[in-house]
Amino acid sequence: MKYTDKGVENLKIAYVGGGSRGWAWKLMSDLAVAGDISGEVDLYDIDYEAACHNEIIGNKFNDACGATTKWTYQARKTIGEALTGADFVIISILPGTFDEMDSDVHTPEKYGIYQPVGDTTGPGGIVRALRTIPMIEVIARAIREYCPKAWVINYTNPMALCIKSLYDTFPEIKAFGCCHEVFAVQELIAKAVCEATGEQITERKAVKANVVGVNHFTWITDARYRNYDVNKIYADFAEKYYYSGVEKKNPDSVFESAHRVKFDLFKRYGVIAAAGDRHLAEFCEGSWYLKNDEQIKDWGFVRTPVSWRKEDLKERQARSERLRTGKEAVTIQETGEDGVRQIRALLGLGDCTTNVNIPNMGQIPNLPLGIVVETNAAFRDNSVDPIFAGPVPDGVWQLVSRAADAQSMVAKAARERNLDLAFKAFANDPLVNLDLPTARQLFDEMVENTKKYLSEYFE
Amino acid sequence: MKYTDKGVENLKIAYVGGGSRGWAWKLMSDLAVAGDISGEVDLYDIDYEAACHNEIIGNKFNDACGATTKWTYQARKTIGEALTGADFVIISILPGTFDEMDSDVHTPEKYGIYQPVGDTTGPGGIVRALRTIPMIEVIARAIREYCPKAWVINYTNPMALCIKSLYDTFPEIKAFGCCHEVFAVQELIAKAVCEATGEQITERKAVKANVVGVNHFTWITDARYRNYDVNKIYADFAEKYYYSGVEKKNPDSVFESAHRVKFDLFKRYGVIAAAGDRHLAEFCEGSWYLKNDEQIKDWGFVRTPVSWRKEDLKERQARSERLRTGKEAVTIQETGEDGVRQIRALLGLGDCTTNVNIPNMGQIPNLPLGIVVETNAAFRDNSVDPIFAGPVPDGVWQLVSRAADAQSMVAKAARERNLDLAFKAFANDPLVNLDLPTARQLFDEMVENTKKYLSEYFE
Amino acid sequence: MKYTDKGVENLKIAYVGGGSRGWAWKLMSDLAVAGDISGEVDLYDIDYEAACHNEIIGNKFNDACGATTKWTYQARKTIGEALTGADFVIISILPGTFDEMDSDVHTPEKYGIYQPVGDTTGPGGIVRALRTIPMIEVIARAIREYCPKAWVINYTNPMALCIKSLYDTFPEIKAFGCCHEVFAVQELIAKAVCEATGEQITERKAVKANVVGVNHFTWITDARYRNYDVNKIYADFAEKYYYSGVEKKNPDSVFESAHRVKFDLFKRYGVIAAAGDRHLAEFCEGSWYLKNDEQIKDWGFVRTPVSWRKEDLKERQARSERLRTGKEAVTIQETGEDGVRQIRALLGLGDCTTNVNIPNMGQIPNLPLGIVVETNAAFRDNSVDPIFAGPVPDGVWQLVSRAADAQSMVAKAARERNLDLAFKAFANDPLVNLDLPTARQLFDEMVENTKKYLSEYFE
Amino acid sequence: MKYTDKGVENLKIAYVGGGSRGWAWKLMSDLAVAGDISGEVDLYDIDYEAACHNEIIGNKFNDACGATTKWTYQARKTIGEALTGADFVIISILPGTFDEMDSDVHTPEKYGIYQPVGDTTGPGGIVRALRTIPMIEVIARAIREYCPKAWVINYTNPMALCIKSLYDTFPEIKAFGCCHEVFAVQELIAKAVCEATGEQITERKAVKANVVGVNHFTWITDARYRNYDVNKIYADFAEKYYYSGVEKKNPDSVFESAHRVKFDLFKRYGVIAAAGDRHLAEFCEGSWYLKNDEQIKDWGFVRTPVSWRKEDLKERQARSERLRTGKEAVTIQETGEDGVRQIRALLGLGDCTTNVNIPNMGQIPNLPLGIVVETNAAFRDNSVDPIFAGPVPDGVWQLVSRAADAQSMVAKAARERNLDLAFKAFANDPLVNLDLPTARQLFDEMVENTKKYLSEYFE
Repeated sequence: MKYTDKGVENLKIAYVGGGSRGWAWKLMSDLAVAGDISGEVDLYDIDYEAACHNEIIGNKFNDACGATTKWTYQARKTIGEALTGADFVIISILPGTFDEMDSDVHTPEKYGIYQPVGDTTGPGGIVRALRTIPMIEVIARAIREYCPKAWVINYTNPMALCIKSLYDTFPEIKAFGCCHEVFAVQELIAKAVCEATGEQITERKAVKANVVGVNHFTWITDARYRNYDVNKIYADFAEKYYYSGVEKKNPDSVFESAHRVKFDLFKRYGVIAAAGDRHLAEFCEGSWYLKNDEQIKDWGFVRTPVSWRKEDLKERQARSERLRTGKEAVTIQETGEDGVRQIRALLGLGDCTTNVNIPNMGQIPNLPLGIVVETNAAFRDNSVDPIFAGPVPDGVWQLVSRAADAQSMVAKAARERNLDLAFKAFANDPLVNLDLPTARQLFDEMVENTKKYLSEYFE
Repeated sequence: MKYTDKGVENLKIAYVGGGSRGWAWKLMSDLAVAGDISGEVDLYDIDYEAACHNEIIGNKFNDACGATTKWTYQARKTIGEALTGADFVIISILPGTFDEMDSDVHTPEKYGIYQPVGDTTGPGGIVRALRTIPMIEVIARAIREYCPKAWVINYTNPMALCIKSLYDTFPEIKAFGCCHEVFAVQELIAKAVCEATGEQITERKAVKANVVGVNHFTWITDARYRNYDVNKIYADFAEKYYYSGVEKKNPDSVFESAHRVKFDLFKRYGVIAAAGDRHLAEFCEGSWYLKNDEQIKDWGFVRTPVSWRKEDLKERQARSERLRTGKEAVTIQETGEDGVRQIRALLGLGDCTTNVNIPNMGQIPNLPLGIVVETNAAFRDNSVDPIFAGPVPDGVWQLVSRAADAQSMVAKAARERNLDLAFKAFANDPLVNLDLPTARQLFDEMVENTKKYLSEYFE
Repeated sequence: MKYTDKGVENLKIAYVGGGSRGWAWKLMSDLAVAGDISGEVDLYDIDYEAACHNEIIGNKFNDACGATTKWTYQARKTIGEALTGADFVIISILPGTFDEMDSDVHTPEKYGIYQPVGDTTGPGGIVRALRTIPMIEVIARAIREYCPKAWVINYTNPMALCIKSLYDTFPEIKAFGCCHEVFAVQELIAKAVCEATGEQITERKAVKANVVGVNHFTWITDARYRNYDVNKIYADFAEKYYYSGVEKKNPDSVFESAHRVKFDLFKRYGVIAAAGDRHLAEFCEGSWYLKNDEQIKDWGFVRTPVSWRKEDLKERQARSERLRTGKEAVTIQETGEDGVRQIRALLGLGDCTTNVNIPNMGQIPNLPLGIVVETNAAFRDNSVDPIFAGPVPDGVWQLVSRAADAQSMVAKAARERNLDLAFKAFANDPLVNLDLPTARQLFDEMVENTKKYLSEYFE
Repeated sequence: MKYTDKGVENLKIAYVGGGSRGWAWKLMSDLAVAGDISGEVDLYDIDYEAACHNEIIGNKFNDACGATTKWTYQARKTIGEALTGADFVIISILPGTFDEMDSDVHTPEKYGIYQPVGDTTGPGGIVRALRTIPMIEVIARAIREYCPKAWVINYTNPMALCIKSLYDTFPEIKAFGCCHEVFAVQELIAKAVCEATGEQITERKAVKANVVGVNHFTWITDARYRNYDVNKIYADFAEKYYYSGVEKKNPDSVFESAHRVKFDLFKRYGVIAAAGDRHLAEFCEGSWYLKNDEQIKDWGFVRTPVSWRKEDLKERQARSERLRTGKEAVTIQETGEDGVRQIRALLGLGDCTTNVNIPNMGQIPNLPLGIVVETNAAFRDNSVDPIFAGPVPDGVWQLVSRAADAQSMVAKAARERNLDLAFKAFANDPLVNLDLPTARQLFDEMVENTKKYLSEYFE
């Protein structure tokens, strides 16, 4: 890369999972309007054809209405070619296919275990981690070989375990993970403040929040807006909407919730849970929010069926085809993602503060060191420094430490390709409320269903 | 007190709860054969008559067959008289009566919550703590006033919370708590070793154990006997008796178990749980071992009904009468308790190492500082120094940290006489698997039942 | 205060030490151009007349050329009046007079101990702390009484001990200390980069620095500018100017140095010392840089004589008179101070990151908790959150831990008004290279010289 | 080894440095009276002939008057033969010859640096460490290969750095280091108690002590004997003998001291320094006790000249010859060493508590983890568990942390064979009060003098 008066040019970004039909297009859009930086984006994907399609689509963004800079997109056949010389690496892969995810999410239902997402924790998240971590290790070793000084941004789930595996494999890596779940809660808080005070808050970033926890199970211990008592405002809001929930924008959404789980957790602990209800529920006792579909419905959220994801993929594939062939024009849109803002900050082009996933060095003093946690961090010229977030509050602490402990056990089990250890974490999961022999039966069934991606565990 | 060539004379021991018809007699027996120490035992009890009876009984021990030293027992009307000049203080009280305990243990059954003991954790343990801690505070303040340098030995449950309250109230106190639950597990390990190797182990202390955890939820991370692989031996033993359990000595006992919970926990975590099954079960998810009486029976332990305790008390009262009037002779017996051995070590009359409950100063590095934990400690001439016990192992850690977190919350709630905060801990308990409004209903009912002892919470 | 579309109005700032003829005028200048905030500044000083003069001078700033907002200055007879309703409190006092400082700095010279500043550490800093801390305690108690939620900014030295005393006295205080010593080192690094690369760096903030240490003995463990290897550049720069030093801007300055101490420390430890050489030398063995005036001259810095300060004060008094009477016009100038930027950030009017002095919560994991340390912190809407700074590097660690240990001992000695304990810290100071009886003689002499302000130690 | 009713037989002990003409004979004597254990001692030494001589001498102990058990001594040509099958390994080597030690101790004198011992810290200790650590690494790797489960007892100096190197090289090693410096201070305290109270204390172990620090710079934070206020007694004792010192038993001893350094340190910090004055002085500023021989004499201790050691070696060689040839009979004597007692405890034949050197796991919470520290530990059946010792007290802390920091730097420098890093530690040593270029000159000279053993640093 090369610094100029204007900014930075000749930047090289490597995108692992570059055949993506979602995140990749958002990045293209954001890069197209990042006026002061330009360069090359190398796309690597095990589906080389998909990467080639994105090469074509990406290059079209240079001519899109509103584009302020130029980027050259290039599909690469090997990860080595993609990574060589990279200043930044983006990792956004689907570990396995939606068939494996189908097993992750839906096999446990036979045993009375319901997962709204199934990609982070719970039986689904654990088995997903088992097949993802070996892939991440391959990527981490390639980064060590081809671009050890590059900044690495991961979007793959299970987020915390992917970041942990990157650091376990290559301890000097400069990696972090981004997730926008907290943003939506800042918006909810803004809504509460507006409702209570009549203020107009148009930007979620205007609500300052101190974040502690692990990815998808983060908590806001201090929310601030001007000199209001935001905690009190939120408490009243939670009370008011405790039973009714907050009306969803789109009643048919398979992602949105009425925030009732959030309000229940607030009443239990006095702390604002800061992720989507679908994720939050998966970290709690199964009997609290996930006993059955009726209970789930009562709590105002939905389980996202994998069949929906399969349908959605087909639509995105069709759209990819339209974009590639020009039947649909590429368009630049506000994505709300922080990725490009972070890249710019790491280049020294404007400090920023946002929540990230990195190993705990003490930013959360009552969680184990080395566990990947989510807190705010300062992005300033080639550095991501966690902001001291303070301890996880009493009550919440034991929920989060359970998740931290599971992270540690699953990471070790995957690193050592040890299914028996993985099962210990599995049996210990709050959703797996089964006696040991039955739990083992479910575990074995899920492993069998996805064994195509678990061969290293049987060597 | 006064050191002599022989040992120590003119020692003064104050016994708070000195009307006791159990522990007190054991202590009398042990003191009678503690050849090199002698002095006075002052008995204080809110039931002054009971203390007077024990004065009579205690003094009879001086003439019992086998007595090797003399002690003067004296009932005292005020705690100040009892404590003044004391070198040692023993606290062994019943907080409230068995009527309150009846509510603690049995009220939750209406909500499907079954507790085998109900004095440590779970809804019963929490409510018991709420009424016990204000009493302990009174005692701690009296110790600060009358004998601030005395060593204080507590036997009252909930053990951890009583010790915590003693230190919270008077931080310079020299207090520790003793419990023999670990001893029985050393015996079980000895049995496993004998069965596997043909060795004859007659003394549980010959099995060395590293202990970590909180009272009644302790774990042995390293058991050793000679150069055997004791962990492997125990694993085989747990496997062999996983379904059948180990035969109970007394099938009708309301305390004994078949150790199946211990074996299940070993299979789950690979670590030896070191307390009675009745206690262990109360710290786990209610659905694991305590769903209903059938499940409890399957796991090979029993719930101790409070009616049994009431009957037992009557028998002990009758025996007290017999002992006092001489219809039954006092007899010296091997009690297996460590108390007098500890007193002698603190006087410099022989070092000893045993497990105790004291605040965490770092002996368990992955539990919060200040939480009362149970580990081994070295007793050496006026000092109790914890032995570094190492971290609670992964898997077990989240169970123990949940208990530690609850300890912190209940201690704070009681200290601040704050029922709303107490309810937060209550709703968070692994046995209280109820939605918030129902949990509150149960909590309020239990508070109402025992409000005679909770008046300070309503001021 | 009141939020408006434009910013905040009706803000109240209390200035303790408001008769100041230095800092106060800088603040007035900075406030006058802080366009989006306005309100009232209450001036309190034990020299009420000086405060009255500053009231007059301050109000003149409203009409100065370039002023963009209005502030009402008001002298107050009592600290209570000044603090009541304050949103911000500024503390900038001179503890005692320059006669006391004369003793602090120059008495030790009779014993061969030379101090370039004498207000932070060393014999002078310690005795200054003994008389300052009781004054700070009075202020802290007043803040607790009159404006417990105000943000408190301290500029008084010894900085670390003042902040520590504020927190020791009123643990819930929201206080921090600001110091610009690090800024000058960022400028020096910028100079090194410019010299090595030809880049033009006009703003010291463009050099990003990770700061660890204690006030006036801070270290930069990571300096960054774009993608240069700034540490290597600085190493070469230190080597090049090791013997010659960097030419001073003003050869007659009693503050400026040739940075040779900084370069020597860099060669010793490989870390950039980030304070003025006069301060740095005081934290090291006396024989390294402060053996005598010749050695001091060789190292390229100067001792600031208190006689100079007395002269300078006279000049500032004269200027105050001119400003008050209008013989000299008040003028707005760029001060380079961060204070108003921080106030605006705390009001939510733009985040900022800068180095501050606050108690260690873990931002420097290898220094004791509770010790006041200096690191970067994020200022964001009513919060100052330390950025995790990482451990003090090996080698430097023992120097800084010596200073931290001294801080702890002096704070305790002052809090307890205990001269014997203070002497323990004194005898332990790296500059006090005397045998114990001689050290005590010096200590007693310095205490005698300043006893007017130490009466509480003799009660 | 094999457990029997009586104890353990067929034990195998490997002695690295088994040609020793000091420690080895003490061990032989202690083993000969360790009635319940027996077996084989394999002697390995780079001086094979010396090992052969000790084989002959050792076997003679079986017939010595008072021997209660039998041991077979056997010289081995390779370390592998010696270690194979070993249950215990003893390491007691002289790194280099006394010619190298001559340079370590006496070269710095040319620069005004005087070292009473020169084998632990200071310029001599650092250079000694540089040549010792590569030797220790060889031993550690051999232990990993031939007897990874053996217990390893080190007596080689620099103790802390040897233990650190053992763990750095083979983290699973079961090693600890023993040193009797603390014992002599327990005796001194006993003397003070006897003098103050008329008590007769015949056994130093009757004085209980809590030990914190690093080897040869240990501190007793709590000394206890019965219910006396031992700290007060010691304070009076230190005051009384502050100027005169305590009379030496043997005025011509090159080891003994008048304890004046200990008393001065007590007055400085209020804590009992617990090592010989010759060692203590080396950890303090050179100007305190080691300015020149006159000052050393004033403080009542002596420097041990290496010429004395050379003479002493000759005498021991002559004695070895006499013992080997039977001109002098071997005799069993009370050695006061703890080694065999520890071996027995590790076999489960009687618990013991003593001070040992092992890595810090938290037993001293305010020193870095992983640094080798000295505290008490419980030896119980195949385990050495540190007793929680608490923090190093204020004041002393900065002295000990300086030593800990140096340990960390020297260990790293030796591990990486990096002389420049070693020099950073060297220049930082409290005795090396030289400017950087002069310090480097001394360092280079000392390295040159001993380069025969430093060849790996030049590869």
